[in-house]
Amino acid sequence: MTTPAESFAPRRAEPIFARLAIIGIGLIGSSIAHAAKDLNLAGRIVLFDRDEAVRARARELGLGHEIAETARDAVRDADHIILCVPVGACGAVAAEIASELKPGAIMSDVGSVKNAVVEAVAPHLPEGVHFVPAHPVAGTENSGPDAGFPSLFLNRWCILTPPEGTDEAAIARTRQLWEGMGAIVEIMTAPHHDLVLAVTSHLPHLIAYNIVGTAEDLAAVTQSEVIKFSAGGFRDFTRIAASDPTMWRDVFLHNKDAVLEMLGRFSEDLSVLTRAIRYGDGETLHKHFTRTRAIRRGIVALGQEKPETEKLRKD
Amino acid sequence: MTTPAESFAPRRAEPIFARLAIIGIGLIGSSIAHAAKDLNLAGRIVLFDRDEAVRARARELGLGHEIAETARDAVRDADHIILCVPVGACGAVAAEIASELKPGAIMSDVGSVKNAVVEAVAPHLPEGVHFVPAHPVAGTENSGPDAGFPSLFLNRWCILTPPEGTDEAAIARTRQLWEGMGAIVEIMTAPHHDLVLAVTSHLPHLIAYNIVGTAEDLAAVTQSEVIKFSAGGFRDFTRIAASDPTMWRDVFLHNKDAVLEMLGRFSEDLSVLTRAIRYGDGETLHKHFTRTRAIRRGIVALGQEKPETEKLRKD
Repeated sequence: MTTPAESFAPRRAEPIFARLAIIGIGLIGSSIAHAAKDLNLAGRIVLFDRDEAVRARARELGLGHEIAETARDAVRDADHIILCVPVGACGAVAAEIASELKPGAIMSDVGSVKNAVVEAVAPHLPEGVHFVPAHPVAGTENSGPDAGFPSLFLNRWCILTPPEGTDEAAIARTRQLWEGMGAIVEIMTAPHHDLVLAVTSHLPHLIAYNIVGTAEDLAAVTQSEVIKFSAGGFRDFTRIAASDPTMWRDVFLHNKDAVLEMLGRFSEDLSVLTRAIRYGDGETLHKHFTRTRAIRRGIVALGQEKPETEKLRKD
Repeated sequence: MTTPAESFAPRRAEPIFARLAIIGIGLIGSSIAHAAKDLNLAGRIVLFDRDEAVRARARELGLGHEIAETARDAVRDADHIILCVPVGACGAVAAEIASELKPGAIMSDVGSVKNAVVEAVAPHLPEGVHFVPAHPVAGTENSGPDAGFPSLFLNRWCILTPPEGTDEAAIARTRQLWEGMGAIVEIMTAPHHDLVLAVTSHLPHLIAYNIVGTAEDLAAVTQSEVIKFSAGGFRDFTRIAASDPTMWRDVFLHNKDAVLEMLGRFSEDLSVLTRAIRYGDGETLHKHFTRTRAIRRGIVALGQEKPETEKLRKD
């Protein structure tokens, strides 16, 4: 059961866009379809996915107003096009649909990496098509057309990274669309986005994937024991490490420099803690563990998360 | 507002222990006091903390039946004694109270490390005192006498690690106490416990502390940006990294060998992923990210956590 969109955002009398095209019907694409349709953010919503089974399922679910049979059909005459495919596929899709884009149309995407997407997509866009890349910082551990729900973006950040000189009206309308779905919009450059997200999202995901893999390889501790006693901290990592493998492969390959930079720092820092444990240096450990509390308090204070109390415990 | 104990466990007509002593009034100690009193698991509950302000606060909160002025007063004539102090303090407390322990009494603790506690505590125990170490795998990010609540242990594992030859009746009564508070009891050896927890709890905590520290040190990304966009994955780490610094310092210092072993494996594995990113080896990344999903499914299947759906989202 999902929260009806109208319970958290007003349904618009007039849509923002006459025709919205969504390419790729996964968690994000299907969530946009739900929210935009429920809230009348677009007059007509057309979706496409290259997987025939996904298109069939999207039809069964009644996503949008129409499921097109080709990407070109989906974007023809669209005012706003959102690529909801893995970052590594954006360039190829842009090349395929470019000739169908009408002047004044706004091209967008939802990739977790922005610089590589700009570089891959921009060269294909015809004169007169605006480009406003977007990254909604929202997700669950579920993927596919069934995973979407209209409130996915509610109170979540959506970062826009329009290249310098992008038409202000196109940026404003893209902002309207995301704010219409309940998101909080922030604008920054693509390179800065990639650096910020390398720390707050990409590195944590890589570390989580890694630690779960390490646990799986142990012989002395059985997998069932790892699962059983996962509440001691491990469990929080497994949720992240269950995210879509293709999406994340592409994120790491396309934000390589920032991720490698963060990984280098992370490993250096870990060496310091490892050494402190090996030589019994409790003071270094205690000092480190104390200062990390401050950033947590910042997150709680900003309302990004409530402090953990009994009421909020899921288990 | 906390869940009343009687809503999740039956109140006993007859207590399990006539006198229960709790040394250390933090999150765990105060939670035991709440649960044991509400459910009549002990006829008289006496608490002690070496911090005078904590004792005063415990009195205000009405924890247990009595707050003693010394550890020796607290344990005198007790049938069951639980050390709820950091792992590194257990030996000293045991030495201090040993002469007051009566024959037949059961000494226990709640440390996240077991081998080091057994080694530190056992030599001090007089003949006739049983020793049943315990580790409730439960906690929140909060510490201190105000943090406790009676349902902390509900449906959480409590691992007992009685040394070989421990009196079976003493083990059974300790099990009764924890099961009485809603925990699910498991018995294993102390060394095996330390290995299992090194993976499922100690390593995740160290990694979380480390990544939060790394993020804090960045100059190019401001702390407010880290906080703002933490929902992308980072936030899950900050909760763990807000845990009690003293407790965790002691865990790492007292489970050194197992933690260093796990850290070694973790770092090796991370090198493989780092290399795959550097050389654009998407296949290695995708393969790794796919297999880590299986362990998550295991955790969800075992009911250790519900899958993340819209209903469960806190944000």
